[in-house]
Amino acid sequence: MTEREYLEHAILLAKKANPKLIRPNPFVGAIVICENGKIIGEGYHQKSGEAHAEVIAINNALLNGAILSSSTLYVTLEPCSHTGKTPPCTNLIIEHKIPHVVIGSLDPNPMVSGVEILEQNGVKITKILLPELSEMNDVFNINQIKKRPKYIIKSATTLNGKIADRNGESKWISNEKSRAFVHQNLRSNVDAILSSAKSIITDNARLNIRHEDGSIEELNTIVIDQHLDLLKEENASLSILHGRTNTTLYIVTNKEDLPAVPNYIQFLKVDFDSNTVNFEALHSILLSKNICSVLVEAGAKLNATLLHSKCIDEIYSFICPSIISDSHSKNVYEQDFAQTMGQITTLTLVKISQFDEDILVHYKVLD
Amino acid sequence: MTEREYLEHAILLAKKANPKLIRPNPFVGAIVICENGKIIGEGYHQKSGEAHAEVIAINNALLNGAILSSSTLYVTLEPCSHTGKTPPCTNLIIEHKIPHVVIGSLDPNPMVSGVEILEQNGVKITKILLPELSEMNDVFNINQIKKRPKYIIKSATTLNGKIADRNGESKWISNEKSRAFVHQNLRSNVDAILSSAKSIITDNARLNIRHEDGSIEELNTIVIDQHLDLLKEENASLSILHGRTNTTLYIVTNKEDLPAVPNYIQFLKVDFDSNTVNFEALHSILLSKNICSVLVEAGAKLNATLLHSKCIDEIYSFICPSIISDSHSKNVYEQDFAQTMGQITTLTLVKISQFDEDILVHYKVLD
Repeated sequence: MTEREYLEHAILLAKKANPKLIRPNPFVGAIVICENGKIIGEGYHQKSGEAHAEVIAINNALLNGAILSSSTLYVTLEPCSHTGKTPPCTNLIIEHKIPHVVIGSLDPNPMVSGVEILEQNGVKITKILLPELSEMNDVFNINQIKKRPKYIIKSATTLNGKIADRNGESKWISNEKSRAFVHQNLRSNVDAILSSAKSIITDNARLNIRHEDGSIEELNTIVIDQHLDLLKEENASLSILHGRTNTTLYIVTNKEDLPAVPNYIQFLKVDFDSNTVNFEALHSILLSKNICSVLVEAGAKLNATLLHSKCIDEIYSFICPSIISDSHSKNVYEQDFAQTMGQITTLTLVKISQFDEDILVHYKVLD
Repeated sequence: MTEREYLEHAILLAKKANPKLIRPNPFVGAIVICENGKIIGEGYHQKSGEAHAEVIAINNALLNGAILSSSTLYVTLEPCSHTGKTPPCTNLIIEHKIPHVVIGSLDPNPMVSGVEILEQNGVKITKILLPELSEMNDVFNINQIKKRPKYIIKSATTLNGKIADRNGESKWISNEKSRAFVHQNLRSNVDAILSSAKSIITDNARLNIRHEDGSIEELNTIVIDQHLDLLKEENASLSILHGRTNTTLYIVTNKEDLPAVPNYIQFLKVDFDSNTVNFEALHSILLSKNICSVLVEAGAKLNATLLHSKCIDEIYSFICPSIISDSHSKNVYEQDFAQTMGQITTLTLVKISQFDEDILVHYKVLD
């Protein structure tokens, strides 16, 4: 096996982890190869606060009688050099006199300088940086580099970008198959969903996950709701407020006087600047609650505000076979201030899919 | 060969015609098969006003010594039964005692009752109606059934349906490859292009055809220009007004006092109803000028008006990797009156193509 193939084996191990159990940590896989080229130890990070991949792989190799001083460690991510919930992995490598470490990606966390420390201690480092690893750990990388959750906008529009008619009516622009994809592939893969009180009230949105077998899964929900509209008496029967047993409804407000609410509702107190939430503040609160990735299913204004605050990483846009030409219907992105052609937001096309006559276009947003 | 294969051979013949030479007639191919199953005569309609396919095929068969009274005629379209620029083909078939005619499609023109007349005269008729024939003659069929040209809208928008910023600036939302497709595959296949004076003035649009080899071809242009804005002194240098040698610039207006203009400009006098052209009237004028298919490259209002007048048959929409969220930017379809979700315009997806990061979606508009 080549060095690259060993790393690819470690990637397969890394991906065995349940993403919800490792949050906010990255996926990491590691293998130990002895002198004759055989895999003698392997491991992957399984749970936040518990052993790192390197530790598991090294312990596994020791159990198998490995001579570590003539072995090579392959690890998908630069080993950590700082004490977090567990001691630094660099110590363990140095301690066991492992002479050669091959790494597949660098840690974006500036506190991590594993490569430097290992080199200073005579460990040979080979870097084979694989693009699929940035992809695999994009949530972690965004969290580290941008100090915020990864945000993904999902929208379903007519061919001309409309999400609702002039009365706010939006059911149903997209078809059943598209909506199933949203539940099973988008909502299922994030830590929370973000919307505005207005959108939720208009649609009486549930924002849960409907699985293929018909079962329903709850999802943490973050609602921008400066004036606590959700809690007004006339909204008491909204689906979003009920039936939550293992997730939280986070209400983002700047109100001081907060009413008593059930346990599954939490207020996130954040400043608002002329009706717009201070996203910088919200980002840190969400990260502190282990909400590392967020799906935005919101209205024109919240979508546009997030986009202009450079908070959006990806967009999944369903383009449906219809047109609403009423100039008072609602566009999917709308703000009041001028944006000229020179200030256009540029996207990068990732993939086009088709669900009957709906088209799903997946974009990344350029920095 | 089966009956279907004979018809498919006739279709190949039909498609040899230059569409611009046969206008307003359909593509038609015909073959004569003698008793032993051999093709003994073939022909296709080549030029409006000249012989129909059946006539050419029958004459060709006679030259080859066919015994028509024991032959079968295959023709892609129901033979004509009325005297137009040439005598009815049914007469010729009856005269030559051709006992069996196989037809691939019916003529949508209610004046044509070829099948009935042939049957009344003892000719056996076999109908094998092939969907590709409605496709091949869709311009002719629309002209006949809807009494108007076929209209195709082409647009290039951001992901959220915008064609220009708040200042009307639109260059360039779509990429070079998309624009080349418009010239070489859309503009090249229509009899004229339709726009509004406002769009042309804003973009100083040329609306010609740029071929792959860099050569430029003129294209008939129809401009909705109630107030003759194109002819105002400040617009005298617009590209659209110059360099025309073999096509016409049609200016649609309701003005009585018309200025003297060069030969290549013609006024089409049509009523306007509260600033909107009377399309019914325009349709007949265009058909009378042999303009059977029209590509619409226009602004929000003209697109929306045509769509709501049920005049649009197909849409080619380029979706480009960008977003303009300014609420004052221009949507591709815009009108002032209400359109609720129940009144949404429904499209049928035909095809998705990709030009680098631009997506081209081709739709048909349902009646």
